Amino acid sequence: MKAYPPGSTLGILGGGQLGRMLAMAAARLGIRTCVLSPDADPPAADVAEHIRGEYDDPDALASLAERADVVTFEFENVESDGARILAERVPVLPRPGVLQITQDRLLEKRALNERGLPTADYVVVSSAADIEAAVAKWGKCVVKTRRFGYDGKGQSVVGAASECQRAWDEMAGRDAIVERWVNFQCEASVLVARSVDGEVVSFDVTRNEHENNILRRSVVPSGLSNAVAGRAVEVAESIAVGLDYVGVLGVELFIGGEDILVNEIAPRVHNSGHWTLDACRVSQFEQHVRAVMGWPLGSAERHSDVVMTNLLGDEASDWHRFADEDGTAVHLYRKLEVRQGRKMGHVTRCSRPAG
Amino acid sequence: MKAYPPGSTLGILGGGQLGRMLAMAAARLGIRTCVLSPDADPPAADVAEHIRGEYDDPDALASLAERADVVTFEFENVESDGARILAERVPVLPRPGVLQITQDRLLEKRALNERGLPTADYVVVSSAADIEAAVAKWGKCVVKTRRFGYDGKGQSVVGAASECQRAWDEMAGRDAIVERWVNFQCEASVLVARSVDGEVVSFDVTRNEHENNILRRSVVPSGLSNAVAGRAVEVAESIAVGLDYVGVLGVELFIGGEDILVNEIAPRVHNSGHWTLDACRVSQFEQHVRAVMGWPLGSAERHSDVVMTNLLGDEASDWHRFADEDGTAVHLYRKLEVRQGRKMGHVTRCSRPAG
Repeated sequence: MKAYPPGSTLGILGGGQLGRMLAMAAARLGIRTCVLSPDADPPAADVAEHIRGEYDDPDALASLAERADVVTFEFENVESDGARILAERVPVLPRPGVLQITQDRLLEKRALNERGLPTADYVVVSSAADIEAAVAKWGKCVVKTRRFGYDGKGQSVVGAASECQRAWDEMAGRDAIVERWVNFQCEASVLVARSVDGEVVSFDVTRNEHENNILRRSVVPSGLSNAVAGRAVEVAESIAVGLDYVGVLGVELFIGGEDILVNEIAPRVHNSGHWTLDACRVSQFEQHVRAVMGWPLGSAERHSDVVMTNLLGDEASDWHRFADEDGTAVHLYRKLEVRQGRKMGHVTRCSRPAG
Repeated sequence: MKAYPPGSTLGILGGGQLGRMLAMAAARLGIRTCVLSPDADPPAADVAEHIRGEYDDPDALASLAERADVVTFEFENVESDGARILAERVPVLPRPGVLQITQDRLLEKRALNERGLPTADYVVVSSAADIEAAVAKWGKCVVKTRRFGYDGKGQSVVGAASECQRAWDEMAGRDAIVERWVNFQCEASVLVARSVDGEVVSFDVTRNEHENNILRRSVVPSGLSNAVAGRAVEVAESIAVGLDYVGVLGVELFIGGEDILVNEIAPRVHNSGHWTLDACRVSQFEQHVRAVMGWPLGSAERHSDVVMTNLLGDEASDWHRFADEDGTAVHLYRKLEVRQGRKMGHVTRCSRPAG
């Protein structure tokens, strides 16, 4: 693939904060963006052209394909039919085949295990009795829908036989798996970028703290040993290479001592990489734009230590206080409606690296 | 003035690269932007709403005033009538009275001298004979139009009596002044921000190198002694305070040993402050948006050493090479037409500060 020059247009499926920050990164490089979103006034529409339409609307998809030189997406739950309609007309990166895998916890885990990458133990379940069998074998488990889960949605923790029927009922007939509960020491993630030419560049490992299954805080440096951090990067890069991936890939990991398990992968820029906007020469958003537009990747050099904190729900109403904090970078997504737990913005607190 | 919250709209007169980078900085804070520009597809239109109209078109100005909570501008040569029409309907910052001063070299120099701030010697001229008299007194001089000059346009160097008639003819009847030539050691600038509440924050002094009267390179740290750099910041801050200025003000200085002369001031973000995008926690663009929207100013802390180089004319066609340079941040303005000397983008080369 050639490199699309400045003045080209990147199409984005989705108009949320990730699309917004991708559009801003593209603009820095002189690249235009056009987002497809069903919303009347999505966050990304402030900084990009906006086609209003559903993600499976053939006319809207055709408009996007006509407008864009390359199409990418800001979330992994794009119906793969939509991605395929697009791919017949315009390059879609990451490739739709990758979406099919990452949309389905079962296919994703199989793809990882086939490549020798460890995940939590799991089993496909199709009844309350199947869940009971897993709990009998492993103790505490998590029941998860195979598809369309995020931020803890579509998940249910079970620790006793008596809870299995409720957990099964909550799946409401959707395909599900049971994962053995992992006693991890910390959660970490690696944002890895891979270019069209196969160049691979990873950002520093991030340590992540969740609350109510939603990312609360990302901390870099992670505090992990060099050996464990190095292994985490190796795991992430081997996934990107193994999937012949193009773009930025978010790899979430469970770390327990020297053990690393892959929790899940996100075929897109990722909340746990927002710190790169303020602490790196080139952000995850620019890196993704560079990769999918066929540009050389940028340096992932980190110039500052950083703690990124999500602003959830009405926490963003304290914008004035955050703006007044010395050395704090404030990012607000201009979302029209405040809902509990909704990601409304984030702040990054940076400091000069020790040593 | 209250602080305009996220979701508010900043209007910008002008749609060039400064408007584009202001719009991107505003978007980071959740603030929408709307630019007024006569061009069909100006650079800022990629990342902002765009009203197409002339800067003195009352209907276009009314649309902008209706759309915006606050209006600012990206260039100092806005007709002050236009700014006044706006100011009757919506807060305009910096205030139109400041524009009147900075649009006119004579008023600007008087305003500076009245406040005890030194400039080059100058005299108002209204004939070739007046220029000759100045050359007889001072030797080498520069004839400059009082209004609407930038990047060396409307300027003419004279060193001998025989050149004065040509220089006068070039003024084509426009009001003009003659400035005594300054033998400076280097050119420097200070970007100073002042908030609605009178808070003042300056970025580190920049050393600037020009070629053909166009800024080629800005270097930080400047290499000036602490004493001179400190005095440069004092001069810039006293101008901002003296003019009761709100927003980012660019102050260009001639430095000769311990002597500092004010060359000119720009009531806006400034090319010599582009490095702040990549080397500071908060850029000059965000600082300006914060100031005019009534927000607290951010920290001007610099985390990296930096050299900013403008990409002029077809130099930007080497974007692929710059993108491939390790640690170089590439900024391209998506201008449709390449012209010799036109500012098409810039690159910043950052490094970890010494010590």
